[in-house]
Amino acid sequence: MDLKKKNVIIIGGGFGGLTAAKQFAGNKEFNVTLIDKTNHHLFQPLLYQVATAALSPGDIATPIRSVFRNKKNIRVVMDEITEVDKENRNVHGTSGKHYSYDYLIVATGTRHSYFGNPEWERHAPGLKTLNDALDIRERVLWSLEQAEKETDPTPRQKFLNFVIIGGGPTGVELAGAISEITRKTGINDFKNVREKDIHVYLIEAQDAILNTYPEELSESARKKLNDMGVNVYLNTMVENINEDGITAGKLTIPSSNVIWAAGNEGTPLLQKLGFDTDRAGRINVNGSLTTHRQPEIYVIGDAANCTDGSGQQVPGIAPAAMQMGKYAAKRILGKVPPDKEFTYLDKGNMATIGRGKAIAEIAGLKFKGFTAWLLWSFVHIFFLIGFRNRFRVMAEWIWYYLTFKGSFRLITGRVDNNDKQ
Amino acid sequence: MDLKKKNVIIIGGGFGGLTAAKQFAGNKEFNVTLIDKTNHHLFQPLLYQVATAALSPGDIATPIRSVFRNKKNIRVVMDEITEVDKENRNVHGTSGKHYSYDYLIVATGTRHSYFGNPEWERHAPGLKTLNDALDIRERVLWSLEQAEKETDPTPRQKFLNFVIIGGGPTGVELAGAISEITRKTGINDFKNVREKDIHVYLIEAQDAILNTYPEELSESARKKLNDMGVNVYLNTMVENINEDGITAGKLTIPSSNVIWAAGNEGTPLLQKLGFDTDRAGRINVNGSLTTHRQPEIYVIGDAANCTDGSGQQVPGIAPAAMQMGKYAAKRILGKVPPDKEFTYLDKGNMATIGRGKAIAEIAGLKFKGFTAWLLWSFVHIFFLIGFRNRFRVMAEWIWYYLTFKGSFRLITGRVDNNDKQ
Repeated sequence: MDLKKKNVIIIGGGFGGLTAAKQFAGNKEFNVTLIDKTNHHLFQPLLYQVATAALSPGDIATPIRSVFRNKKNIRVVMDEITEVDKENRNVHGTSGKHYSYDYLIVATGTRHSYFGNPEWERHAPGLKTLNDALDIRERVLWSLEQAEKETDPTPRQKFLNFVIIGGGPTGVELAGAISEITRKTGINDFKNVREKDIHVYLIEAQDAILNTYPEELSESARKKLNDMGVNVYLNTMVENINEDGITAGKLTIPSSNVIWAAGNEGTPLLQKLGFDTDRAGRINVNGSLTTHRQPEIYVIGDAANCTDGSGQQVPGIAPAAMQMGKYAAKRILGKVPPDKEFTYLDKGNMATIGRGKAIAEIAGLKFKGFTAWLLWSFVHIFFLIGFRNRFRVMAEWIWYYLTFKGSFRLITGRVDNNDKQ
Repeated sequence: MDLKKKNVIIIGGGFGGLTAAKQFAGNKEFNVTLIDKTNHHLFQPLLYQVATAALSPGDIATPIRSVFRNKKNIRVVMDEITEVDKENRNVHGTSGKHYSYDYLIVATGTRHSYFGNPEWERHAPGLKTLNDALDIRERVLWSLEQAEKETDPTPRQKFLNFVIIGGGPTGVELAGAISEITRKTGINDFKNVREKDIHVYLIEAQDAILNTYPEELSESARKKLNDMGVNVYLNTMVENINEDGITAGKLTIPSSNVIWAAGNEGTPLLQKLGFDTDRAGRINVNGSLTTHRQPEIYVIGDAANCTDGSGQQVPGIAPAAMQMGKYAAKRILGKVPPDKEFTYLDKGNMATIGRGKAIAEIAGLKFKGFTAWLLWSFVHIFFLIGFRNRFRVMAEWIWYYLTFKGSFRLITGRVDNNDKQ
């Protein structure tokens, strides 16, 4: 190792970490080590399509190594970091290895939060990883299989009720997609399951779904979901989730398919760093994306609670993480004046609801329906990494749009059946 | 249920069971229930390509339901049959359900046999299901990741030794493909792993690999594997497998990647039927594919040990299973004279070794190299179920042939890392 070179460690290969690492490519003064506990960068905005079997894992994920194949000064390591020794400037992985740094970029994102009810996780998995997506997919398919052979109507209905908790983008996308696949794609294959037997519920604690959007768009999304047969419950706080289903006030829904899309919190590593965090466990950073105590440690993306230089709260979305990654890297590279704070540039916001249906807000303009969906499709294909993934995803979408046939309805036996009962 | 109709139960949705079920499509006198413990028919001859990340699970598997979507008299059930009550003519599933039959077709295939050493399975998984394939794929990728970060040469080499036990078609295909993906596709992504560090071993107890083929072809396959960098050991009987690797006489190979392709045995259900079985646990059937005691129970495919009407031992391969399935169904349908025994029609045999390399024997003619590989490719694409799968697989192969780039090198976290050490 060249001692004159500075070592930068980036923890997390999501949108933020990956963008940060790219800034250092080919630089002769910095060695970068990008550490992730998986071996792939995940295009998380399309993860719900893997969960609903519209896409396969390889379509939306790229091995991080491939991205940096020809970059000599960027090393990719698969390891899970559990400790940061700020004094000696090194981080420790579960592999037993230590990695030393001059600069550290923390980009570990968030994980599901069950608001103090960790026992709910078993019955209501969340959607963060490819593994989560494949588990949810198998649960849904397995439930339809059970319903097909069950003749007693009471236990049978439990298999045909699908409950999604949380009306943010992920919850809305899942509700729309599950309604589509179970009613259209799935139904023809099952001889005893009728479309009217399937009920999809979307449960939101606040008074609107997609509540970061203007009321007009949020309300349009709610109506579209209703048209698609999704029962949307607003102002409804879930009180209990167990193997029988969910309870929320007077509402009780028996279900073997509950999916959690209601809350996120910072990863455990963030707590261990010993910095101030907000209620969701994200680290409070200043406009330089650092804390005042440790200017060599940057925190970016969902891991950070940040008010930017213009006083704007930075949202927890991919474009923000990428902008933060770029800013942090450029600061380390000395390409940003020390007093220039990070400023988030809002390029717009979009969410999809179903086949041919979406909402979008770009530069104050509002889009709904098919136009918004086309916009959404193009933007998502454009930002996918790799020509091959783009081509495959586009082909899948066109096929699905024309035929309504999803592709991979396979239960490979990932989840033990006993777990699902 | 119409009491006048006869109930046929088919256990197993592989090549034999699926072909048998198809014969009954649209028949007004028979109701068929096809029961499988998974929800998909698997094109097993290409399973090694899923294990080596050349294809994805959806490319080689089809939901059994889709196959019979429009066949009213064929019901598909996902259940695992554990008991057959021959007296009352019904079968019992793990779901607690019973299914009654007038005719039963047993097509449950085989599973790995570790020749009395079940403890080897943990360290040397076999390849029968999509789950197995994905586990093997993750083990291989995970090992390369470990080697990349390990600096001590002794533990490091263990991650770079790949051992395949058994020189039949599956073993040969796996050895060839693993050599290709680790040396060509994989290597560019890893900065610390050199091609010369990777060793692939194929261990065969007998004196030839692919020993059902003529010596000329078998020897040609061995040479091709050698050229591809696979170390082929003949006359070598494995004596022990543990977390450190394998031992066979004086040969000791430290390896965290041992794959079992050496032996098969009948599924446990076959033992429970109470019929005579051979040493491999397959049921001995007569030329009618039944036992003399229970003429309403047919046993087909790999589950049967059968000498056909012409005195030929029926091989355990897909075309034989399909022919047996067709024969059994036609007998039940009364389309075969009672005294006409099953005769296996040998349509040829082929095995692939690597990109552009295969051997084939068709009607006494021998093929090697690229010609054999083209033949192999066309036959396998032709027999895949569904236009979509055919198109996808062909596209993948052309892409791979031209670019040498495998597609999905993702570790989704299926296997607990502790398991792999």
